[in-house]
Amino acid sequence: MAGEIKRIGFIGTGIMGAPMARNLARAGFLVAAFDQDATKVERLGPHGVKPCGSGADAATDKDAVVVMLNTGPVCDDVLLREGTGALWAMRPGSLLIVMSSIAVKTAKEQARRAGEVGVRYLDAPVSGGEVGAKDGTLSIMVGGKEADVASARPVFDALGRPVHIGPTGTGQLTKLANQLTVASTIVAVAETLLLAERGGADLARVREALLGGFARSRILELQGLRMIEEDFKPGGTATHQIKDTAAALELAEDLGIRLPMLELADRLFTDLVANGDGELDHSAIIRELRRRNALPVT
Amino acid sequence: MAGEIKRIGFIGTGIMGAPMARNLARAGFLVAAFDQDATKVERLGPHGVKPCGSGADAATDKDAVVVMLNTGPVCDDVLLREGTGALWAMRPGSLLIVMSSIAVKTAKEQARRAGEVGVRYLDAPVSGGEVGAKDGTLSIMVGGKEADVASARPVFDALGRPVHIGPTGTGQLTKLANQLTVASTIVAVAETLLLAERGGADLARVREALLGGFARSRILELQGLRMIEEDFKPGGTATHQIKDTAAALELAEDLGIRLPMLELADRLFTDLVANGDGELDHSAIIRELRRRNALPVT
Repeated sequence: MAGEIKRIGFIGTGIMGAPMARNLARAGFLVAAFDQDATKVERLGPHGVKPCGSGADAATDKDAVVVMLNTGPVCDDVLLREGTGALWAMRPGSLLIVMSSIAVKTAKEQARRAGEVGVRYLDAPVSGGEVGAKDGTLSIMVGGKEADVASARPVFDALGRPVHIGPTGTGQLTKLANQLTVASTIVAVAETLLLAERGGADLARVREALLGGFARSRILELQGLRMIEEDFKPGGTATHQIKDTAAALELAEDLGIRLPMLELADRLFTDLVANGDGELDHSAIIRELRRRNALPVT
Repeated sequence: MAGEIKRIGFIGTGIMGAPMARNLARAGFLVAAFDQDATKVERLGPHGVKPCGSGADAATDKDAVVVMLNTGPVCDDVLLREGTGALWAMRPGSLLIVMSSIAVKTAKEQARRAGEVGVRYLDAPVSGGEVGAKDGTLSIMVGGKEADVASARPVFDALGRPVHIGPTGTGQLTKLANQLTVASTIVAVAETLLLAERGGADLARVREALLGGFARSRILELQGLRMIEEDFKPGGTATHQIKDTAAALELAEDLGIRLPMLELADRLFTDLVANGDGELDHSAIIRELRRRNALPVT
């Protein structure tokens, strides 16, 4: 077991990663960061984050490495690339924390490879979006060994609220479960508002009333407002949403179960993207419902 | 316009109505109540509610009549029955407030009949269940004229949080929209927990983590806990749930739109009831998902 975490390598300083790296530096960790896009890392200099020229560079001589890259394949490449992967630069006993949303089986394989070189591993994807990343209020779903979660606690506390779910992979499992709820609830809220609109109600008041009862949800609060205001600047894009629903469907298939609402949500978001709205916020699903009902879409 | 509301006739003192009548009496209104089941009304005596022998009796010489019966047809019978209906006992200028969940078109027709005898009308269905009724924290969705809503404000304030949605019928419309969100979200949460369970996660921790992010909802909080604990004592029964989804589907059809997630939720709840679980809480939908996946149902 390693001692206290002081020096952190941070890989991937995009929309989510940049504010997370800043919050770690603010909490007193010594943070060195790498991103493919060098300008993104340099922008963090004034916030006490040291720029590095490669993932391996950022990972060298650290107590922990935090990864916040976009996809599983990108994570695998940056971590495991032969010779120059960041994992090979990590010292034995140090801790690799992958906070990207990746497949359960990818996380398990990364943990196995880390174990081979004496590196401890946690999968710790997040929910809460850019706002949660900035405010340090992310929901962090952690899979891995109890002792490793305990030693990572100060890191997580600087970023949000960690919940240790179970063994390696269950953090990613929980993230997919989370996305299943999110995708389905967005569709439900869109259908709800469309019904109310067709019935002639004032949607702002409908939303307000529903927030006071059993229908209350963060999706109704946030995405519901976007639908009413037709504000579809992303946020989370529809394209990203089908990445999540497809991953959840694949996992369900691996586990031998069928989930009809997930399948429906995936179909609707797939149609939304096919109809050209992939770069809009996922709340734009209400546009797909309008199309299906031959209603005007502005 | 009538003056201040002091004397209230309350019709229908079941699971929801009884605590609502009590809260009105506690707030200082003079409440006289009727229920088909006389013992239900008599139980309210010690709480300052005067028992009446008929709906018409309860409605006589009141400033407002509140109706909290089970279905639209029952409301119509108690209110409009030839000769002995409660509406015919109401004095001109007084206010009829129907808080039952009924069809939009039924509400509009009741308002028309009330108008013919000079009685003002509000449709004001609620969300929040037995707990909300007891605690006086119901979400109240109100349709009708601004001035009538204003005069009913003290009544609503004793019961929960009113939101005036729009003209007559829009309270009921909003309630159906609410039920659409509720039914769909219950299915989404059930699929989410089933996926997490099959993946080997601790469901209590999954729920805790999801409550911290975008997946947060009252349904996850309340019905999610029931699913984890397999506590299917109703609450809201599955049978009642399909009454709501069927009514929402009928409304959507009247409005000329199709809502695929509502249709799916309706099918799943219909199957749940067909498989003998109609008297369980609607959170028992997770049992139907288990059945569909040939998983054991305890």
